[in-house]
Amino acid sequence: MNLARNTDWSEFTRFAKHLAEEAARAIMPHFRQDLAVEVKSGAIWDPVTEADRGAERVMRHHIETHFPDHGILGEEFGAKKGTSGFTWILDPVDGTRAFICGMPTWATLIGLNFEGEPMLGVMSQPFVGEVFFGNPEGAWVDYRGTTRRLRVRPRRPLSDAVLTTTAPELYRTDHEKAVLARLSAATRLTRYGGDAYFFCVMAAGQVDIAMDARMEPYDIAPLLPIIRGAGGAASTWDRGNPSLGGNVITASSADLLEDALAVIHA
Amino acid sequence: MNLARNTDWSEFTRFAKHLAEEAARAIMPHFRQDLAVEVKSGAIWDPVTEADRGAERVMRHHIETHFPDHGILGEEFGAKKGTSGFTWILDPVDGTRAFICGMPTWATLIGLNFEGEPMLGVMSQPFVGEVFFGNPEGAWVDYRGTTRRLRVRPRRPLSDAVLTTTAPELYRTDHEKAVLARLSAATRLTRYGGDAYFFCVMAAGQVDIAMDARMEPYDIAPLLPIIRGAGGAASTWDRGNPSLGGNVITASSADLLEDALAVIHA
Repeated sequence: MNLARNTDWSEFTRFAKHLAEEAARAIMPHFRQDLAVEVKSGAIWDPVTEADRGAERVMRHHIETHFPDHGILGEEFGAKKGTSGFTWILDPVDGTRAFICGMPTWATLIGLNFEGEPMLGVMSQPFVGEVFFGNPEGAWVDYRGTTRRLRVRPRRPLSDAVLTTTAPELYRTDHEKAVLARLSAATRLTRYGGDAYFFCVMAAGQVDIAMDARMEPYDIAPLLPIIRGAGGAASTWDRGNPSLGGNVITASSADLLEDALAVIHA
Repeated sequence: MNLARNTDWSEFTRFAKHLAEEAARAIMPHFRQDLAVEVKSGAIWDPVTEADRGAERVMRHHIETHFPDHGILGEEFGAKKGTSGFTWILDPVDGTRAFICGMPTWATLIGLNFEGEPMLGVMSQPFVGEVFFGNPEGAWVDYRGTTRRLRVRPRRPLSDAVLTTTAPELYRTDHEKAVLARLSAATRLTRYGGDAYFFCVMAAGQVDIAMDARMEPYDIAPLLPIIRGAGGAASTWDRGNPSLGGNVITASSADLLEDALAVIHA
């Protein structure tokens, strides 16, 4: 980890935000337009758009030009092994269903892992014009020319907590449905429809728990440095490492996360 | 209705957009801040914020100054009878739960009814910076200095339609739950978490059906001129006038609305 410790994160952060701007240029012309929707086999309804592919292409090109020894894991074009220990994690349009519905809650996710550990993350919503980002030095949000530090909110009892998750239908097995039902019953309010946004508003101190089932690594890895940089905590439902995805739960503190995990395992 | 027919809707539309700007000035300092949340008696969790009150106060003041003979119906401060046939309908922060969660999907709703009929509507989301509006001449959206005409999308079979609604827990009776379950099963995808935004993205041709249970008049009246100006159709679930709220369903065409109503009454 010495290499990662000595890394200039602000330089990588600037580069990652530049990737987000390039991605936005590829994506925005397709937002709120008629889209030819493609259905991935096996997915319930997971459209992949030209936007998604165009943005990943341009981001991969920039990474390959500037950091030829870095690995890349992208939603659309898979994994490229690197030799440096660094791997970029790319999800050009996270929340494709929000995107095709014209809702401004999809996001471009860009992460940088070192030896498998998420170190840097950017969540960009170019239609709104805000960029959440985190690295080992903290977490921030840019909006209309201002940069604001992110802090989770103080711990509250689980019964007062606001729980967020993308959609109830993503909970498919009986176990998954039971987990959602139990946590909804144990908290004050459950909100749907946020995708990556929910993890970022949790980092911004607006909600207490953000959770999703069946996440891919590129759905969650870029968000972890934002959540942790703001003081939040994350794990899989079975207390494992969330970096590789799966069923993931994140909370505004390690204590609240433990309260929620206790309900999951009750 | 002669008075309404001869009305200069563009003048009223400009005035309504000005109200939205004034409301935004009162609301935005409270967005993404810590909020003291108040619980209205009887509501499941319907917080009223200083933002809500401050914005309605400033809008009412402007209306009373410019149109002293107009009526006003506001979410926070109730009804004021007018003598002109015109009544302004104000919902400063529609989607208060989205607001307190820091999500950019709440909206300021401003409507103008004539003799009870919604003639003009504005939906403003100042954090995103977009304003949807409609009147007897059509419907449009302003975003970053550009104004775009809104058109619903061509009719598709109900089985291909995207259904949107704010939250499953707003469907409380067995009948309401059955209606949501039947329509979800009959359509391709159900999305939650949009509040007024869903009705506007329907008008913008992005989704096919937007529906909610237990709407107040100020939740829906300002949206009807946007929906209808874009070519959409609206009614209550029992085929009544949606202007007064209740259980409301809107669709991208009268035919698709009829298909959905047939499922509701199956």
